[in-house]
Amino acid sequence: MSPKITTELLKQLRQVMKNPRYVQEPVQAYIVPSGDAHQSEYIAPCDCRRAFISGFDGSAGTAIVTEQHAALWTDGRYFLQAAHQMDSNWTLMKMGLKDTPTQEDWLVSVLPEGSKVGVDPFIIPADQWKRMSKALRSAGHDLVPVKGNLIDTIWTDCPQRPCKPLITLDLSYTGVSWRDKIVALRSKMAERKVMWFVVTALDEVAWLFNLRGSDVEYNPVFFAYAVIGMNTISLFIDGDRMMDPAVREHLQLDSTLEPEFKIQVMPYGSILSELQAVGTGLSPKEKVWLSDKASYALTEAIPKAYRYLTPYTPICIAKAVKNAVETEGMRRAHIKDAVALCELFNWLEKEVPKGTVTEIVAADKAEEFRSQQKDFVELSFATISSTGPNGAIIHYKPVPETNRTLSVNEIYLLDSGAQYKDGTTDVTRTMHFGTPSAYEKECFTYVLKGHIAVSAAIFPNGTKGHLLDSFARSALWDCGLDYLHGTGHGVGSFLNVHEGPCGISYKTFADEPLEAGMIVSDEPGYYEDGSFGIRIENVVLVIPAETKYNFKNRGSLTFEPLTLVPIQTKMIDVNLLTEKECTWVNEYHQKCREVVGAELERQGRHEALAWLLRETEPLARVQ
Amino acid sequence: MSPKITTELLKQLRQVMKNPRYVQEPVQAYIVPSGDAHQSEYIAPCDCRRAFISGFDGSAGTAIVTEQHAALWTDGRYFLQAAHQMDSNWTLMKMGLKDTPTQEDWLVSVLPEGSKVGVDPFIIPADQWKRMSKALRSAGHDLVPVKGNLIDTIWTDCPQRPCKPLITLDLSYTGVSWRDKIVALRSKMAERKVMWFVVTALDEVAWLFNLRGSDVEYNPVFFAYAVIGMNTISLFIDGDRMMDPAVREHLQLDSTLEPEFKIQVMPYGSILSELQAVGTGLSPKEKVWLSDKASYALTEAIPKAYRYLTPYTPICIAKAVKNAVETEGMRRAHIKDAVALCELFNWLEKEVPKGTVTEIVAADKAEEFRSQQKDFVELSFATISSTGPNGAIIHYKPVPETNRTLSVNEIYLLDSGAQYKDGTTDVTRTMHFGTPSAYEKECFTYVLKGHIAVSAAIFPNGTKGHLLDSFARSALWDCGLDYLHGTGHGVGSFLNVHEGPCGISYKTFADEPLEAGMIVSDEPGYYEDGSFGIRIENVVLVIPAETKYNFKNRGSLTFEPLTLVPIQTKMIDVNLLTEKECTWVNEYHQKCREVVGAELERQGRHEALAWLLRETEPLARVQ
Repeated sequence: MSPKITTELLKQLRQVMKNPRYVQEPVQAYIVPSGDAHQSEYIAPCDCRRAFISGFDGSAGTAIVTEQHAALWTDGRYFLQAAHQMDSNWTLMKMGLKDTPTQEDWLVSVLPEGSKVGVDPFIIPADQWKRMSKALRSAGHDLVPVKGNLIDTIWTDCPQRPCKPLITLDLSYTGVSWRDKIVALRSKMAERKVMWFVVTALDEVAWLFNLRGSDVEYNPVFFAYAVIGMNTISLFIDGDRMMDPAVREHLQLDSTLEPEFKIQVMPYGSILSELQAVGTGLSPKEKVWLSDKASYALTEAIPKAYRYLTPYTPICIAKAVKNAVETEGMRRAHIKDAVALCELFNWLEKEVPKGTVTEIVAADKAEEFRSQQKDFVELSFATISSTGPNGAIIHYKPVPETNRTLSVNEIYLLDSGAQYKDGTTDVTRTMHFGTPSAYEKECFTYVLKGHIAVSAAIFPNGTKGHLLDSFARSALWDCGLDYLHGTGHGVGSFLNVHEGPCGISYKTFADEPLEAGMIVSDEPGYYEDGSFGIRIENVVLVIPAETKYNFKNRGSLTFEPLTLVPIQTKMIDVNLLTEKECTWVNEYHQKCREVVGAELERQGRHEALAWLLRETEPLARVQ
Repeated sequence: MSPKITTELLKQLRQVMKNPRYVQEPVQAYIVPSGDAHQSEYIAPCDCRRAFISGFDGSAGTAIVTEQHAALWTDGRYFLQAAHQMDSNWTLMKMGLKDTPTQEDWLVSVLPEGSKVGVDPFIIPADQWKRMSKALRSAGHDLVPVKGNLIDTIWTDCPQRPCKPLITLDLSYTGVSWRDKIVALRSKMAERKVMWFVVTALDEVAWLFNLRGSDVEYNPVFFAYAVIGMNTISLFIDGDRMMDPAVREHLQLDSTLEPEFKIQVMPYGSILSELQAVGTGLSPKEKVWLSDKASYALTEAIPKAYRYLTPYTPICIAKAVKNAVETEGMRRAHIKDAVALCELFNWLEKEVPKGTVTEIVAADKAEEFRSQQKDFVELSFATISSTGPNGAIIHYKPVPETNRTLSVNEIYLLDSGAQYKDGTTDVTRTMHFGTPSAYEKECFTYVLKGHIAVSAAIFPNGTKGHLLDSFARSALWDCGLDYLHGTGHGVGSFLNVHEGPCGISYKTFADEPLEAGMIVSDEPGYYEDGSFGIRIENVVLVIPAETKYNFKNRGSLTFEPLTLVPIQTKMIDVNLLTEKECTWVNEYHQKCREVVGAELERQGRHEALAWLLRETEPLARVQ
C-alpha cells in the first residue's frame, strides 16, 4: 500500500478555505468527519470525503486541515493502516493513547488567535458540534457551518449518490409490520410528550418501514429520512424507487388507509426545508424528538426550546431487541454461514500447502461459498483476509499491493460475514495450516480464554455491556498483553453489522443495558505488529441464565453463541485452559457438530462435514 | 430506629417557600442537596440540612420538597437506613434501580406548569445546576437560586459553624512543602494558560497548605477557600486560627518572602465578593480555573467566557498520587491499625460468648485500641459495627435504639478506620464467633474471591479503575448474587477517607486512570436483607507489576494491600477457592504474621500476637 499523495489536494483545499465563493469568511481550519449526513459508519463512495483528502480509507477517522497542518484522528484498529495510507503531509493522531491530544486541544494549540474553524453542518453530528464549538469558543475561536462541502468543490470526479431499488420484507422476516412499529413508536412519543420524531439514521428508516436497499455497500440501507408525527408519516426518498409496485403495495401507498398511516413521499433533498417548516409552526409543548447524533443542520432546523434530544432513539432501542422471528432468522443465517466456512476451511487446508492461495483468493472463495447459501444478499463488510504481519492490521482489507500468499508458516486471520435476507453474520477465525509456535499458541489461548470469559459470563439483568469488557482482557493482562479495540458491537438483523445501542467496550459508558434478545459480537484479539494477528469472534445472543440465587428475582442473563464455526484446536495450548474452559470448548464444538453437521449433511457437503468432524474432536486436558 | 416526624417542619418549609421575606418569587419546589458549600461528602452539623428536614442522615442523598410531595434520592448503601429514618411524608427514591425516576424527571412529572424550583446556590455544584436547570427549562420550569438557605430559616436550633485550631504537618509527613506544591500548581496553570485557580474543596485547601483541622468530624479539614494567582495567594479562613504561632511559622506569615509566596489571609465569608472582584477585573485570556463541582454561586462569580472548568482539579490529581514519604506513612498507619484490630478481635473472641458485647461496645473498644497507637488523631468515619440483620444496612451506625448484642449465632461486620498523623485507614472484616452456616460461608467465599480478583488483578498502566469493578462481582454473579455499591474509593493520606479522582466502581466513567502511588479501597460485599451483611475491605496501593510481556513497555500495574488484618478462615469454604486464590490468602496471612506480628511483639501485646498466629494458619485445599 503506497500512501496517497495529497500535496496538491491540500493546496486546493486551503485555497477554497479562503475563497469567498465558498466561504462567507475565510476559515483557518476545516474539519472533515468520517460520516455522511446520516452519521453512518459505512458510507457511499460519494461520501468518502475524508478518504479522498487524506488517503486513509478505514471506517473511522476525522481529518482536520489548517493553513499549516493536516492531522487525522483514528483508533487502535487503524493505526497501522492509516500510517501506510497517508503521506508525510499528514500527522496521525492515535486515539486512546495517553499523549494524543483531542481534536479540540490540538486545534487550540495550532490555531492563530480568533480563528474560524469550518465544517459541513450536514456531516457533523449535533453533539459533536456542541462539544467542539464550546471548546473552541472558550479558547477564543469559532466553529462555523460552511454550506456546501469544501471537499466536494475540489473533488472533480466525485461519484454520484446511489439510488438503487428497494427490497420489501414481509412478516416472515420481520415479525412485526411497519404499521405496528409506527404504533409502538407513537406510544413512546406520547410517553415522552413529543409530537414529532425525525428518523435520521439510515438503518432506522429501513427497520421502521421493513424495507432494505443497497445504496451503501455491505449495509442494506437506502438514502432516506422520515418524519413521524402523531397523525402523519413523511418519507423523504429520491428516484423512481417508489414506482416499484412491490414497494407501493408494501407501504400501501395506493390503498385507502386511516390517515395516520398514510405515507407522504417527498424528495430526499427537501428534508431541511420541510423540517424548518415544522420548526416554525410549532406551538408551545410541541416537542420534536431527534437523536443527539443527528446532523447539526437538521437539529438547528428545530428551535432549541422545542428539541427533545436523546443519545439513543426509541427505534434504535426497539431494533436492538430482536423478536422471535428475527432471532430464528439470525440462527438460520448463522448455520448457513457456518456451512460456507466449513467448506472454505476444508478447501484452504488442501490448497494452502500448494502456495497458490492469496489473501484475495481466500476472501473470494469465502464469498463464493456464502453466495451458494439460500437468501444470500451480499457480504456484511469488506472481508478481512490477512496472513502473517497483515493480520496485525486490525481492519485490514487485502488489495493487490499488499496481497500475501497463505502458507503453512504463518497465522491466517479471516474476519468476514454476510447479509442474508434472514440475518446478518460476522465471524472471525484464526488458523494455522502448519505448526504454530508455542508463543502463537500461548497468545491464541489467552484470547480464547477472554472470548470464553465473556461468552460464558453470567450477569444481572440490566447490566451494561461495557462492564463485561475487562473479562475479555483478564487472561491477556495477566501476561502483560492487551488489544486496542473494544470487545463487541451490536449486530443488526439483515441490517448494519455494527449497530447501537449496546456493545461490549471499555470506550463507552452510555450504552444501554443488555437485555434478552439483544445480539452482540464477542471478539477479543491480540496483535503483534509486523508478525501476526489473532482474533476469535462469535456473534452471541443475550438469553436468560439459570443461577442458583437469580439476583433476588432481578433475573440473570448470559450469552448463547449464534456463530457455530469450529475454533482451531491446533492453536490451543490446552494446559493453559481451566477445566471449565475446556468443557466450554468441547460443548461448543459438540453443538457445531450437531447443528452445522446436520445442515452439511442436508446440503450433501460430505467433505466439509468430514472436516467439521475432524476439527471438533474433544480437547483432552493433561491433569 | 424510629422515623423523624417531619409533618410540622414540611409545613413550615412550604410556608417559607412562598414567603416574600425569603424568596423573591414563590418556589413550587425546593431542593436540599447533601453537601455543604465545598461539596464535602462528610459535613459539619450546621450543614446537615437534608438530615434535618428528612430525618435521613446517611452520607449521600438529596431531598426535594414540593407543595404536595417530599421525596429523597439515595443509593443502594442507604435504602434500608433511609426507609427506617423517614416518616410517611417522604417517598424514598432508590437510585440505581431501573424504575426510579431522576430528580429532574420526577420534578417534571409532579410540578404544575411554569414552576420555579429553588435551591441554595452555595450548596448546589455548578455541574448539577447546569444539568438540572437545562432539564427543567426544557419542560417549561425554572431553576432559581434562593439566597439564604430556606432550611436555615426554619432550623431554630441550628448549631454554629465550627472553627477549631489547625495542625501543621512538616516534611516528615508530607514529603513536599506547601511552597513546592504552589510551584507545581502554578506550572499546571501555566500549561493550561489560566491565571487564577480557586480551591473550593476542603481537603484540597488542607493538602495544598500542609495543614489539617477538625471542623468536620472524621475528616481532618477546616473551613477555608483559597485563590491562587500566578503571583498571589489568598487564603479565606475565619477565627483566630491564624494567630497560632505554629501556623504563622508554618505559613511564613511573618517572614520576608518573595511576594509570590506571601499569603494574604482574608475572612472566610469574603470569598464571593473577592471572587466577583477578580471576575470583573479580568482581561481577555485571563482564565479562572474552577472545579466543575464548585458551587453555582462561586462559579457564577466568574463571567462564563473566563471560566476554565474541569471535573478534577490539578490538586485533586496530585493529591491522589502519594509520594514516598506519604506511602511510608500510610504503611505505618496500617500496621498500627492492624495491631489495634488484632487486640480487638482477640478481645471479642473471648467476650462475645458471654453475651455482654453490643455493637456500640465493640465500636468503642475498637476506638480505644486505636487510640493507644502513636499519632492517633480520631476515627476516619463513624464505625460500622453491625451484627446479624444490621449488617445488611450497608452504612449502618449503631445507635441505642438499634444496638444489637453480638453472639455466637450471627455474623459480625466491622467497617472502621482511623486518622493517624501519618495516614488514614479503612478496613472491613466480617467474622463469626460461633459456627457459620454453609450458606454464610458460601457467600463469604464469593465475596473473598471478588476481593482477591481485584487485589491480584494485573492491568496496563493507564487503566481506569472502573474497568476492574466487574472482577469483584464475577464470582457472585455466577451464582446470581450482587451488591449495590461500588467496589472501591480513593483514600487520602491523613485526609478524607473518600477522595477522588480514582476509584473502582461501575457507577463512574470519568475516573482518572490508575497510576503507581494511588491508594484505593477494595471492598466487595454481599447483603441479605433482614439476615446478614458480608464485606471484606483492604486499602490497597497501586504498584508496578512484573508481567511476562509488560504491555509492549506501556507498563504493568497491580495492587499491594496496605491493610494487614487476618481474614477469618473459619468463614471460608476452601473448596470454592482455586489454588491461586488459596495461595493468595496464605501469602497475605504470612505477611500479616511477619509485619504485624513484629509490631505486636515490639509493643509487647503477646495475647493479640497469639491470636494473630492462630488466625493466620495456612489454608489447605482438599484436592
